[in-house]
Amino acid sequence: MKMIAATNNIHKLEEIRAILKDKGITVVSLADAGLTVEIEENGDSFTDNALIKAREVWRLTGEAAIADDSGLEVDALGGQPGVKSARYSGETGDDKDRKNNEKLKAALRTVPDGKRSARFCSAIAAVFPNGKEIIVEGYVYGKIGYTEKGGNGFGYDPLFIVDGYGKTMAELDSKEKNKISHRANALKEFVKKLE
Amino acid sequence: MKMIAATNNIHKLEEIRAILKDKGITVVSLADAGLTVEIEENGDSFTDNALIKAREVWRLTGEAAIADDSGLEVDALGGQPGVKSARYSGETGDDKDRKNNEKLKAALRTVPDGKRSARFCSAIAAVFPNGKEIIVEGYVYGKIGYTEKGGNGFGYDPLFIVDGYGKTMAELDSKEKNKISHRANALKEFVKKLE
Repeated sequence: MKMIAATNNIHKLEEIRAILKDKGITVVSLADAGLTVEIEENGDSFTDNALIKAREVWRLTGEAAIADDSGLEVDALGGQPGVKSARYSGETGDDKDRKNNEKLKAALRTVPDGKRSARFCSAIAAVFPNGKEIIVEGYVYGKIGYTEKGGNGFGYDPLFIVDGYGKTMAELDSKEKNKISHRANALKEFVKKLE
Repeated sequence: MKMIAATNNIHKLEEIRAILKDKGITVVSLADAGLTVEIEENGDSFTDNALIKAREVWRLTGEAAIADDSGLEVDALGGQPGVKSARYSGETGDDKDRKNNEKLKAALRTVPDGKRSARFCSAIAAVFPNGKEIIVEGYVYGKIGYTEKGGNGFGYDPLFIVDGYGKTMAELDSKEKNKISHRANALKEFVKKLE
């Protein structure tokens, strides 16, 4: 089966592609599908946003579409940055990740160890040619470190210390990350529902 | 604040009590509240069942009620035993946990390493005296071992090897378990929504 991934984020595309390849699903990018659309993510939740994106690609192409919406929820911040994770600092350019991490560190400067728990959430939505939809969520739990560590991954990965690993998400190699990440856990649920 | 926990399971009660104590919430059992009710859990999902239980206790008492419904979802079994986790083997007596674990091991006998991934899910529902409701979910991810290990915990804990820990849930001490368990993760979400 071929699915169009409703994302312009190359990191997300690669993770989705790597995980679904084993299941005989070929994931192509918006560009591969000849789409240059920029979809506004104005939902209140990860699931809303994932559905908005998958439905739009399906509407434009009639083909199977898959979308991820994901972010970081920090307990001490009442679940922020949440759906605003990618635009937390207001920065939109190449320096976005660094600025977002700076803002997060500043927000947690006075928050002690033991109160820095957080989770990454990924919502995956898929729409099939017949209009049927699948929507699932996955998580990975951890805590926010004081300094960035590790060079893999993207977004908040360098600050997110994974429970049980004593390493940030950016210190895990991509094979390991693709087993335990929020996106991997959501995609496992997706495959379960697909079967 | 006092909340009545809609459970007759002493293990669940103790976990909920331990985690919410820090938040100034006193959790009392059904028995403490003078209730001897046996609530039928006939929902299709953990959230349905948790809501059924919390609403029933609120209906009977008018007091704040909290309920957990939880279980194990094994990927290779398409998400089973799921909502049937507690009654998977059909056994209902004291030997229930052992029989359930035996059945799970048998179901996965031919499933190789790398295909034994699973998650524990906990749905927590609360109903407040004014009828307002909170519903949240939490997870912990891992894989199913070949033999039971560890003497703490209950249910499928001795077969569930927690991602990143290399130990079963039943090998973790209760302090550690109460930081990373599905129920702990759901209760963190609950506290976040409460605030």
